[in-house]
Amino acid sequence: MKKENIGIIGAGSWGIALAYLLTNNGHDVTVWTRRKEAAEQFQKDHENKDKLPGVVLPDSVLFTSDIKEAVTGKNILVLVVPSAHLRDTMELMKPYISNDQIIVNCSKGIEESSLLVMSQVIHDVLGNDFPRKNITVLSGPSHAEEVGKGVPTTIVVGAISESVAVRLQNVFMNEVFRVYISPDMKGIEIGAACKNVIALAAGIADGLGYGDNTKAALITRGITEITRLGIAAGGHFETFAGLSGIGDLIVTCASMHSRNRRAGILIGQGKTMQEAMDEVHMVVEGVYSAKAALKLSKLFDVEMPIVEQVCEVLFNDKPAKEAVADLMLRDKKVESHKIEFPEA
Amino acid sequence: MKKENIGIIGAGSWGIALAYLLTNNGHDVTVWTRRKEAAEQFQKDHENKDKLPGVVLPDSVLFTSDIKEAVTGKNILVLVVPSAHLRDTMELMKPYISNDQIIVNCSKGIEESSLLVMSQVIHDVLGNDFPRKNITVLSGPSHAEEVGKGVPTTIVVGAISESVAVRLQNVFMNEVFRVYISPDMKGIEIGAACKNVIALAAGIADGLGYGDNTKAALITRGITEITRLGIAAGGHFETFAGLSGIGDLIVTCASMHSRNRRAGILIGQGKTMQEAMDEVHMVVEGVYSAKAALKLSKLFDVEMPIVEQVCEVLFNDKPAKEAVADLMLRDKKVESHKIEFPEA
Repeated sequence: MKKENIGIIGAGSWGIALAYLLTNNGHDVTVWTRRKEAAEQFQKDHENKDKLPGVVLPDSVLFTSDIKEAVTGKNILVLVVPSAHLRDTMELMKPYISNDQIIVNCSKGIEESSLLVMSQVIHDVLGNDFPRKNITVLSGPSHAEEVGKGVPTTIVVGAISESVAVRLQNVFMNEVFRVYISPDMKGIEIGAACKNVIALAAGIADGLGYGDNTKAALITRGITEITRLGIAAGGHFETFAGLSGIGDLIVTCASMHSRNRRAGILIGQGKTMQEAMDEVHMVVEGVYSAKAALKLSKLFDVEMPIVEQVCEVLFNDKPAKEAVADLMLRDKKVESHKIEFPEA
Repeated sequence: MKKENIGIIGAGSWGIALAYLLTNNGHDVTVWTRRKEAAEQFQKDHENKDKLPGVVLPDSVLFTSDIKEAVTGKNILVLVVPSAHLRDTMELMKPYISNDQIIVNCSKGIEESSLLVMSQVIHDVLGNDFPRKNITVLSGPSHAEEVGKGVPTTIVVGAISESVAVRLQNVFMNEVFRVYISPDMKGIEIGAACKNVIALAAGIADGLGYGDNTKAALITRGITEITRLGIAAGGHFETFAGLSGIGDLIVTCASMHSRNRRAGILIGQGKTMQEAMDEVHMVVEGVYSAKAALKLSKLFDVEMPIVEQVCEVLFNDKPAKEAVADLMLRDKKVESHKIEFPEA
């Protein structure tokens, strides 16, 4: 296996879990974090005790707050910053990026002002001179807490070039981390951005005291409307039925690791959006994605009834119970418009 | 709404939950159960205290062990017997069935000897004189325990005739039970039969102490291989991404209501198949479906690696941990063969 020199941009739970995975796979890893004191503390502890306690990295992992050091000379740059900070961080990196570097984006979201997905934001910052095939994405059902413990996990790498995808597959894959490859970056990124909205809805249903039937309905009909949006935006049906689509949605809706689900539960119990966000104490990506997804659904003229109701609850104070009732009593429907009845 | 006269064949948890739903919707309901004493007890209690405690039916629901009484004069017959008893039960019903009756099959499975799905078994028993459009199927993520409590639930009716499907949609749908319609009976039935095998696998992973990532991987790659089989058998991709496919699989893999998952957990903890079945004390449909699915995969020449490994564990004493390791380290793959890389 070829040893790669990897810069991980972001030292949150997923950044640390990937540093753990990639050093285990024999690569050289440098991790960037914005604050100097944090970099020094992580270097001393070999651990981010706040975000991913218990995952101790080998001495060989370098932490730095110097973006030039994190970027220069690396073969592969892995982006693991919150989606709201991706553009700023890319601007910081830009002066040091060279055209032979591979960028692996792990941030999930849609930029609300531009309606661009994250790989498009990266392209927008780097400009047309940077080879588009070197911008890739990594996504799938992968709680950092579990990857950091070696729990068997599967994930997908998206890239427009097959050889780049295969190279990254070899970099990330091991006996507990199975990597599939796909050319459908748009499908992967739309799924990743929208899943948090459905996780909010699933949390709201949990907060209302509804059961497994209701949650399975929201997940299944949720992926149906994400798929409609994703296909309109240029993605492929199969991707939404895959690891970065339904797979990631399942893990997000099932787990208390998910901030989006936890915020939804509070809203279902009667809290306002602001109260829920204050109580969860962290960025709830689904709240921002909900707005962006609704805008995109209007732009592409596709129906997203669950996203619409989530927006009503979040931004127009609609009682959550009414929103669920409105979803249950919409017009009677066929399950898929793509299959025709052989008889009248 | 038209009032229907409905015979429910089977008084287990799902039969009782459907009796509750259909009487709430204003229909006349008769429930058949094989043993006379059981029918008398249920009539006295208005409840099956063993299988679905707490769901008390109105006085108007009639229980009988007389198959002639249960079938004669009904507009709609709902079949809710274990799949292994479907053929025998249909033989009992056959003398009293008339060609204008609608049959709604709720049994999930593949007959191992014939490799027929349940609607095909019904057709096989009734013969070509009985109109095929009157054989329909009902499936989706719907624990009886929750439907009996009015928890919001979604489900799909499959029928080759749109008008029959719409009629059933009107019969079953209400403000907490949302019914979609679909012409893809084969897709619905293959998904329903195979989900229990994947639920066993998910249970095994839980029993081994693996996490949400592993389960999401098994569910997602599980539906991928079920889809491959289902398309080869004549089903449609969209159906497997829908309520009777991924939806039902999610609910089955998430819930301790599922016997298949519970049996899997015991096997993951080191019990043999027989010990697990003895401890769960009930028919574990997935054990039979696993064999049938493996046979079908060979017949249609499609890869089903998870089903194969489940069969290895169940029938060839392969240690569960080895089976998972073999799944993780198979050849490196693309996620979907249907999407091509734009660049080499």
